[in-house]
This record gives sequence, structure tokens and C-alpha cells, in this order.
Amino acid sequence: MDVIITADIGGTQIRVAVYPANGIKPLRQKRIPTKGKDPAHVRLTGLIAELMHPDENALAIAAAAPGPTDPKLGLVLNAPNIPGWTNLPLAQMLHDQFHLPVYLGNDANVAALGEWRFGAGKGHHDLIYFTISTGIGGGVISDDRLLLGQRGLATELGHVTVDPNGPVCGCGHRGHIEAFSSGTAIARFVAGQLAQGRASTLTAIPQPNAHDVSVAADAGDELAIEALERAGKYMGIAIANYLHIFNPSIVVLGGGVSHSGGHFFIPMRQSLKESVFSPGYLENLTLTTAELGDDMGLLGALALAQTYLNIS
Amino acid sequence: MDVIITADIGGTQIRVAVYPANGIKPLRQKRIPTKGKDPAHVRLTGLIAELMHPDENALAIAAAAPGPTDPKLGLVLNAPNIPGWTNLPLAQMLHDQFHLPVYLGNDANVAALGEWRFGAGKGHHDLIYFTISTGIGGGVISDDRLLLGQRGLATELGHVTVDPNGPVCGCGHRGHIEAFSSGTAIARFVAGQLAQGRASTLTAIPQPNAHDVSVAADAGDELAIEALERAGKYMGIAIANYLHIFNPSIVVLGGGVSHSGGHFFIPMRQSLKESVFSPGYLENLTLTTAELGDDMGLLGALALAQTYLNIS
Repeated sequence: MDVIITADIGGTQIRVAVYPANGIKPLRQKRIPTKGKDPAHVRLTGLIAELMHPDENALAIAAAAPGPTDPKLGLVLNAPNIPGWTNLPLAQMLHDQFHLPVYLGNDANVAALGEWRFGAGKGHHDLIYFTISTGIGGGVISDDRLLLGQRGLATELGHVTVDPNGPVCGCGHRGHIEAFSSGTAIARFVAGQLAQGRASTLTAIPQPNAHDVSVAADAGDELAIEALERAGKYMGIAIANYLHIFNPSIVVLGGGVSHSGGHFFIPMRQSLKESVFSPGYLENLTLTTAELGDDMGLLGALALAQTYLNIS
Repeated sequence: MDVIITADIGGTQIRVAVYPANGIKPLRQKRIPTKGKDPAHVRLTGLIAELMHPDENALAIAAAAPGPTDPKLGLVLNAPNIPGWTNLPLAQMLHDQFHLPVYLGNDANVAALGEWRFGAGKGHHDLIYFTISTGIGGGVISDDRLLLGQRGLATELGHVTVDPNGPVCGCGHRGHIEAFSSGTAIARFVAGQLAQGRASTLTAIPQPNAHDVSVAADAGDELAIEALERAGKYMGIAIANYLHIFNPSIVVLGGGVSHSGGHFFIPMRQSLKESVFSPGYLENLTLTTAELGDDMGLLGALALAQTYLNIS
């Protein structure tokens, strides 16, 4: 039986699954913590070896890596939460050990491929995927192809300036959309307001995160509602920009903040509508949330391998 | 002899040229004013008919249209300077008359194709082209393909928000890069400063345009220098955003403002460098001006036809 080995490498856990080459139900899978006695790459290769089966014909290994990767050279450029993973030639390392083709992508790009092939974006040719969680990442399918750029560094959709006088982003630059609408940005806005003595039920929580803010908003907390509305409003401006840039037929939102409900989505849709400069961009446009959930990395890596292997 | 008929349709003039199918030197060409006794589409078809030759085998007609087009349906959606050209089925009209394949693109997209195939971008796989003139338009080649989006409305690179509190754009929305760095924006900034009583040699010119500002800057006028520096600074921010989005190996600048020299380019390069969030985006990056000059529309249309016809 032809199979594809997929890995979803995160800062907290490494997951590996074995899929039939043309299927989407895993034959078996396992997850382990990323950090342990051995370095992460040793843990990863050990887990792959453990899940491979001599009776099966593995066609390829595909992996979703956290942070920027160079998919053409097979490098993990920088995985901030994994010590030593800087300019790591992961594809070569896996190839040397398993003698298989290795396909590598960053998590957001791979998620975009997964949603396009198996999830909310099925049947679309032009898709934008955003993950809105600690940071904001993205992936773009244009005319049935993943947009990569010369080194695979394209579609860093969180790192575009929406206000040069805005707050400082996690990357150190001012006014990126990530600095307005990510989970971190929402929490930071609330912390700033609380520090100024703003009344809120969130004062009861030490260092409230975006999920806490979402819960408080649902309970009617005014500051929490304002924080989500602000994040949603800027996200709407950013999405409008990306409609002008990519003219997609579907925008898919994933990541924790995408579960924040109407306090985020209603102002987002409103500012999106107000910010689009020609109504043609909203025609035939689907705006929806991601469908693949927890398996997005594994299924995305599967989509990556199937795409390279021309399996339809 | 196999030939390709190309047309460059502008608000002021219509140009038509006949090229050898695999060449870039026109066999013959002619230009006429866009406005005349007959409607523009009649003038266009008349000029094509005049330049076609019965001894030649025309493979296709390719046209660059001003303003948004739907290249898939062959529609000119809106050509602001040509009366009646709204949702005009130009490709169908030309096909009905000449019984040839017709390829249509907006002027900025077609220019991007031309620069990529014949001009500054030869040999690159990932290119961004900006035209900075009255407005700001753009075109993107990603992995050797023109980025179009679902309806061909992608890469409206002038209409992205760089400051939600910025000046109003020609499209009516606030803070687009076009509202900071286009020729119109430069002239408007100067007009605003002059109205506030600012001293400048430009007071001698009624309604100075961006070219006047550029000339004054070269002569040392402080207001003119400030106007170009401001435009350049914001353009640098926008280009950095687009590097994060597309990770190209070359950025090509065309349009009148791209001739403004160091008063525009030095601050642009400076803010670009400051705004890029990872040095990888500047590696192997060429930043240059367009090469095709006045023939960009005709050569771009030729590139469009050759691309569709798989002529290399």
C-alpha cells in the first residue's frame, strides 16, 4: 500500500501520521512533546521511524514547520520555540535518514493548502487563509497554486503596516495588522486599558489572554467587547487590502481568535465592507472559518505531498 | 508570416502595432487619438483593420486596456476616461469582427508582463511591477505566472491602506498608498502646503503637478523636496509590505514619479530597509526602474499573447 508520512511540528508537540497516499483518514498517528531528553529533530525522526511499517510503500514525507521555512531548499529558517532550529536543513536530514522525497512548508502555508484541498476551500481556485492566534500568519492559493515567492517567504500576511503610528508588533515594527488583531494584541490592549484603571470584570484575572477577553465579552464586559471590536475592525481593513491584492473567491479564518464570535466578526465584516474600494471584490466571495481543526497541520502536510506528487 | 496584433488603449490615444509572432520589433504601427467622431471601439477596430495585412497570418489580438478589466470574460469593467466603456465586452467585439483569439489585460498587469518578458525583469520568476503616475497601479508575476484572482481584479497595489487616518484616495477611501505617493498625491500635498502660506518657488506655477515638484526639488526647493521625500517614505513602507506578501526577486517601478530621482528614491529605499521585518526579503532583491518606456503597453500586450500562445 502506498502511504504518505506527515508531520506537524509545533513548539509544544510533534505529531506524525501515516495516510494512504490518496486518502485523508490516517492509518495511524501519534503525538509526543517537542521538548525532551533528545533534541527535537531526533525526537521527530524517532517518531517517524516508529510509525513507518515495512509492508507499506512510503512515497514521501511532508512536514509543517512552525515559523519561516524555505520550502525550496528544505530549510527551517527559524522556529522560535524550538531551540537550535535556525537554518536547519530539515528536508535533507529526513531524506538522509529515510531516503524519501521530503516536502516542507511553514504551518500557515500548509494549513492554507489543507483547507483548500480538504476543508472550507474545496473547489475554489483563489483562496486566502489567515490564522489569527498568538500572531497572524497566512497562506494564499492563487489559480490553484500555493504562492511562495523566490525563497518561500511570501504571504507573511500578519506583517503589513495598517497604521505606521500603531502599536509595536511582535516583530518589532510598528503598526502591523498582527499588532492590532492577534490574540497577543487583544490581550495587550486590555492590559493597557486595565493599567489605566479601566473598570472591567477582567481585573479579576491575572494577565487575561484573548480567550479570557472573548469569554468576558460574551458575558457583556464593555472593555472586552471594545477590545474585540477594535481587533475586528482592523482585521476588516486588512482583509479588504488583501482582496484588492489577491481577488480571491474565499477567505478562510483559522486560529483561536477566529472563535471569538460576533464581537469580533460583526465589526470585521462591517469594516471590510466599508474598506473595499469596488463592490466587485465582494461578489462571489465566501468569508468563513477553517474546518480542519486540530488536524490542520497533518492534513495540510498531506495536501502538500499530494500536490507535489500530483495525486488528485 | 505569423503575426500578433497588439493594442494599447489609453484615455488620450490608441496605439496598434503588428509584431512577428516570436519577435519584439513591430512590422508596423500607428497611433490615433482615442476621442474622435466615432466611438472609441469603432476607432480601435478601424485601426486594427487598417494595419492588418492579407499576406500575414494573424494568430491573435492582444490589448492593454486602461482601468479594471476582467481578462477571463474579456470585459473592460470601467475605463474612466473613455465614455461608454463600462462592462464593455471588448474581447467578444474584437473576436466577432476579426475571428481571432483575443487576450485582454489591464494596463498595469500587461506592463508587468512586458517588463518580465522583455524588460527589467527578464529571467526573474517573481516580480512586482508598480506604475506610479496619476494613480498607483501594479502587476505581479508569481512563479512565472501573472497573478489575476478570481475575476482578474487582483494586484490593485495602489489601493491598500497604509494609514487609516491618512488623506483621501482618488477612489474615495482614506489612507491608501495612492493617496500618499502618486503624482496626484504629491501635487495635492504641495497645494495644501502652499494654501497654508508655505514659501516655495512653486508659488510661481498655477496648480503645480508632480513633474513641476520634481523640477523644483532638483533646483533645491525645500517644500518640493519634502513632498517627494514624504511620497518616497510611504512608498518604501508599501514596498516592504509587498515584499512580505510576495517575496519577489525584483521590484520594477514605472510611471512618471519613478523619474523623480534621489529626492524620491533615497527616502524610499531608506524606509523600505527600515520597514522590512526580516533581512531575508532584501537578499537577492533587485529594485529598479522600468525599461520599456513608451512602448510598454504594446510590448506588454505582445507578452500577454505570447504567454497564452505558449510562444517562448
